[in-house]
Amino acid sequence: MGSNRIGKVFQVTTFGESHGCAMGAVIDGCPSGLEITEEEIQMELERRRPGLSRHTSPRKERDRVEILSGIFEGKTTGAPIALLIKNEDGRRDAYEPIKDILRPGHANYTYLKKYGIFDYRGGGRASARETVARVAAGAIARKLIAPIVCKAKVIEVGGEKDPKRIDELLDQMVTEGDSIGAVIECEIYNVPAGLGDPIYDKLEAQLGSAMLSIPATRGVEFGEGFHAAKMKGSMHNDEYGLDEKGNIRSLTNRHGGILAGISTGEVIVFRVPFKPTSSIKKSQKSVDLSGHEVPFILPEGSRHDPCVALRAPSIVEAMASLVLADSLLVQKSYTR
Amino acid sequence: MGSNRIGKVFQVTTFGESHGCAMGAVIDGCPSGLEITEEEIQMELERRRPGLSRHTSPRKERDRVEILSGIFEGKTTGAPIALLIKNEDGRRDAYEPIKDILRPGHANYTYLKKYGIFDYRGGGRASARETVARVAAGAIARKLIAPIVCKAKVIEVGGEKDPKRIDELLDQMVTEGDSIGAVIECEIYNVPAGLGDPIYDKLEAQLGSAMLSIPATRGVEFGEGFHAAKMKGSMHNDEYGLDEKGNIRSLTNRHGGILAGISTGEVIVFRVPFKPTSSIKKSQKSVDLSGHEVPFILPEGSRHDPCVALRAPSIVEAMASLVLADSLLVQKSYTR
Amino acid sequence: MGSNRIGKVFQVTTFGESHGCAMGAVIDGCPSGLEITEEEIQMELERRRPGLSRHTSPRKERDRVEILSGIFEGKTTGAPIALLIKNEDGRRDAYEPIKDILRPGHANYTYLKKYGIFDYRGGGRASARETVARVAAGAIARKLIAPIVCKAKVIEVGGEKDPKRIDELLDQMVTEGDSIGAVIECEIYNVPAGLGDPIYDKLEAQLGSAMLSIPATRGVEFGEGFHAAKMKGSMHNDEYGLDEKGNIRSLTNRHGGILAGISTGEVIVFRVPFKPTSSIKKSQKSVDLSGHEVPFILPEGSRHDPCVALRAPSIVEAMASLVLADSLLVQKSYTR
Amino acid sequence: MGSNRIGKVFQVTTFGESHGCAMGAVIDGCPSGLEITEEEIQMELERRRPGLSRHTSPRKERDRVEILSGIFEGKTTGAPIALLIKNEDGRRDAYEPIKDILRPGHANYTYLKKYGIFDYRGGGRASARETVARVAAGAIARKLIAPIVCKAKVIEVGGEKDPKRIDELLDQMVTEGDSIGAVIECEIYNVPAGLGDPIYDKLEAQLGSAMLSIPATRGVEFGEGFHAAKMKGSMHNDEYGLDEKGNIRSLTNRHGGILAGISTGEVIVFRVPFKPTSSIKKSQKSVDLSGHEVPFILPEGSRHDPCVALRAPSIVEAMASLVLADSLLVQKSYTR
Repeated sequence: MGSNRIGKVFQVTTFGESHGCAMGAVIDGCPSGLEITEEEIQMELERRRPGLSRHTSPRKERDRVEILSGIFEGKTTGAPIALLIKNEDGRRDAYEPIKDILRPGHANYTYLKKYGIFDYRGGGRASARETVARVAAGAIARKLIAPIVCKAKVIEVGGEKDPKRIDELLDQMVTEGDSIGAVIECEIYNVPAGLGDPIYDKLEAQLGSAMLSIPATRGVEFGEGFHAAKMKGSMHNDEYGLDEKGNIRSLTNRHGGILAGISTGEVIVFRVPFKPTSSIKKSQKSVDLSGHEVPFILPEGSRHDPCVALRAPSIVEAMASLVLADSLLVQKSYTR
Repeated sequence: MGSNRIGKVFQVTTFGESHGCAMGAVIDGCPSGLEITEEEIQMELERRRPGLSRHTSPRKERDRVEILSGIFEGKTTGAPIALLIKNEDGRRDAYEPIKDILRPGHANYTYLKKYGIFDYRGGGRASARETVARVAAGAIARKLIAPIVCKAKVIEVGGEKDPKRIDELLDQMVTEGDSIGAVIECEIYNVPAGLGDPIYDKLEAQLGSAMLSIPATRGVEFGEGFHAAKMKGSMHNDEYGLDEKGNIRSLTNRHGGILAGISTGEVIVFRVPFKPTSSIKKSQKSVDLSGHEVPFILPEGSRHDPCVALRAPSIVEAMASLVLADSLLVQKSYTR
Repeated sequence: MGSNRIGKVFQVTTFGESHGCAMGAVIDGCPSGLEITEEEIQMELERRRPGLSRHTSPRKERDRVEILSGIFEGKTTGAPIALLIKNEDGRRDAYEPIKDILRPGHANYTYLKKYGIFDYRGGGRASARETVARVAAGAIARKLIAPIVCKAKVIEVGGEKDPKRIDELLDQMVTEGDSIGAVIECEIYNVPAGLGDPIYDKLEAQLGSAMLSIPATRGVEFGEGFHAAKMKGSMHNDEYGLDEKGNIRSLTNRHGGILAGISTGEVIVFRVPFKPTSSIKKSQKSVDLSGHEVPFILPEGSRHDPCVALRAPSIVEAMASLVLADSLLVQKSYTR
Repeated sequence: MGSNRIGKVFQVTTFGESHGCAMGAVIDGCPSGLEITEEEIQMELERRRPGLSRHTSPRKERDRVEILSGIFEGKTTGAPIALLIKNEDGRRDAYEPIKDILRPGHANYTYLKKYGIFDYRGGGRASARETVARVAAGAIARKLIAPIVCKAKVIEVGGEKDPKRIDELLDQMVTEGDSIGAVIECEIYNVPAGLGDPIYDKLEAQLGSAMLSIPATRGVEFGEGFHAAKMKGSMHNDEYGLDEKGNIRSLTNRHGGILAGISTGEVIVFRVPFKPTSSIKKSQKSVDLSGHEVPFILPEGSRHDPCVALRAPSIVEAMASLVLADSLLVQKSYTR
């Protein structure tokens, strides 16, 4: 039912499994005439790439994107844009020994229940690897929405906000073979007022859905978010005034750039909590497919990522860019 | 672009403005053979109805639902079900004096930016009144999904969890002419494992989007939610075991009933923060449409609701029921 | 799965059964600022109305349209437009005696197979009555697409093209209690070049689908249509030239205004064959639901329409207008 | 707006240009557990392949399909299935000399008007080459719908039905450098009663739309089709009876297997007229992009296909299979 697709006009469909041949995306609905090169998409993939920090998993993916269609002489033609990223670091065998054991925090139980079949190699479709296709597609959205810019960063790890404390905490996780959660904040600049759809496709609903589609996210909040539930109306309402040029402005931005589902022209602000990486080096209670209780122990040599959120800012930005690209194009149909 | 519609198979389209003739919903995709009466829908509308508690706004809506189509001899026929609720308590004139002033926290600025036109009568389409159609449609979803049950309740008001303290806080808001935020928690019982779609339409993404489409919501979190960002993997992961009947079970439910976007069979748990009601009796700085700074003061006799979340549990339940109804029907197409 | 909806941006959902309370349409996606009155919609309903010619069925429907939402101070607001037409001429009892007999050419067998239930009253949802909602929605599309105009007319009845012969043929059908097929041709003027989508949503595919959705249609052909299958390329190709103003023009219009699925700026031309009315006064072999062979005889006093196509031009125009309205709005998203 | 996608549940998105890197399809919504091999898909591609008869164009495409995702250990997993067919016979240079001249009967004028840009290499996206991806996806649909079978064949070329006369006519077209139109008839066997959606997505509307999306088609008709417009109701209606096993059957099949948009269980029959190939070796009047009238002459060595319909049966079957696959899956959601 189209669950691998996002967007109403700028429609992105992704495909590929962690240890299959390739990951990819097809973008249907990108306007013609947009200049885009493989290098620009590649740059975004580099930002996402693991193995660049000592706290991210050392998978040696080169992640070279190929544009298969939709670009002619450096510009989009209006035809669907197909992007392909071949998988080079397979290591399928690594998953053989644990293929029949439910992995705590992972997809294998639910996928089995849903499909009656599971591609156990590295999580198959339910792998963080899948987000490489999102980032590739997001790179095109990013160009399309300029001068709108989506900027995401990790603002908190395990409850700590101080960079030095965060670094120590991550080192400790590596030592312990454990993992830790984190919060990412995203700000979107230069958004014109009027974007987003009322009722069921409010801009918060669309951005929120996009965020909750990222693996390991556990929620989302806009503006004051959960804190708004503790506030009085007289404190939470943003009053209106005029700026020096006489333009109507919100005097504060507790609403986080969106009112009644539609952008106000202020900076859009939201935060996303990520759970700790599910793969840890500690033994955990589990069950195998023949119905026996067995311990689950990650095989020797398995990758270990102490905090899955560390490389998620580029994914959050990609998803936000996809939503904004779509909103910009949808908005055109509202006017005669 | 269909922003007034929710659902892939169980598709609900709503219409109507706060002070127009009527509110309504059309459900396209309800299976045939479901028994449903106007009385059953009416019961849900009564639960949502304001004016039943001393802390909700005394709008004297009778909210009588009429079934216009899709039901024959007490059962759904597979034809679209149209539901109509006439608006009886108009009071359009009440909004005339303030129609040209931006209302802090309300939709008039963003709607004007989007559409170039605004139905100022009580917020028009962007009114909490609009949710009556959701509750009516939700009543049918509720019957369809049985024995799955969605139960929502206010668990916190202005940071307070104690009922007595909450009551005092609400009284204080009435006295001050101010308002206060709150958190609603929803639990969904009897969900079979395997519901929800991977990647972009994860069950969290669909439920989250549905919650963020409710007026005044500012976020959503599943399971441990934002708290997960402070946890270690060894604490957050739910281990697997066997129950007394030998069935696979999650030994704890920190994941909140959904893993990798798909239901696990455990209780689904999420929480939604509501901002304080935007309409307050205090004077606020604002601007009128001719570009002058003016105070915004709610007209004498205007309704005042100290906490918009108080009557939202039935709306949260309705939206959750719509998502579950859709997921159940979508799931059928996954199997051969 | 949304089978009661048409359109990607200008989305129309219809509801109602022949002998239920009311027929209706909800239009989601009409741009704001369009001036429209109930009178303008009413005018289109009058054109469709049966009982105005001696060769159409004398159902005494008044077909008064009510606008329930989406219009404020004479203009569309961008909110969904709900239109309601109450059913006044019920006569449900007329269908009781034949409710268990399959009606040759009618929907009751297939609906039973699909839904396991059938609203037998006048065909329920599968009645030509359903098109009243299409015509109402089409009236709004018609205004939106101006100066584009869709003009349909009956060009052939029972193989006859001469009006006098057609009139005689229809009289003969009334006398015999039989019915006759016909062909409607539609021309669409003032269409700008560039409308329609490539590949699966070609303008022919969209118009064709819309025509084949009208009850009793049996096909559709564009430009030379089936005759093109007998032609040589050198005769069928339209050559290009310049008009007096130096604009590129197709020197002929055998392509019927659409090439590769996209409008060329020439007049769009298509033809639609309608089968003879299925309800005739002759006895026909049939079967009842308990599995016995029985004759099917239309009850005394049943309406009889010798040629269902006679009142279809307004429906063809409405459907074509809906497709063009959608195409015009979709086209906006193709440009940056 | 998704114009490169077909299907509600069994959703196929195609991409690729005639002279780009590759053609491809992504199928989202194929149920898990279907056994399928590259060889089975390859077999369908061979049937479509040009150059196998002396009357089809000698493009030396090998058309090797690669399955990139969605299949694990020989079975579909429920993840999107990506299929890739690399383009090997480029010859982009052949199109350089004529890139600025409008080609009669081709897409370049309309694509330019729509997108402001045109990939002139062999028609780019608007090439019959694009159908290779449809046939690949159709091969999977074909397996899914078994025992339903779609069989298409050319029944008429240039008005001739006799094979010997057709052969002579095609030889004549090759000699003259001209082309000729044809009619394809498709029959679909073993369709259960009850498939197809009422109102806007009638089975005729869906099949008709799919047929009109095939390049060079000019119409479609079901059952008696245009001939029904010449018939009386008493001749056209199919009466009901019981077969030897006591099952309800239509005694004749003038309705072509579909009544009121829903399958009756009888063989589905439709016919599709194809226009003559637009590329002919005769000089034609045209205009270049700088606005001068110039003759259009196909470059020396260009391929020439006297009758584009000759290799279309596999495409018609593929498209019909896609529609049936979707209908079968959609139908599941109609029942509780």
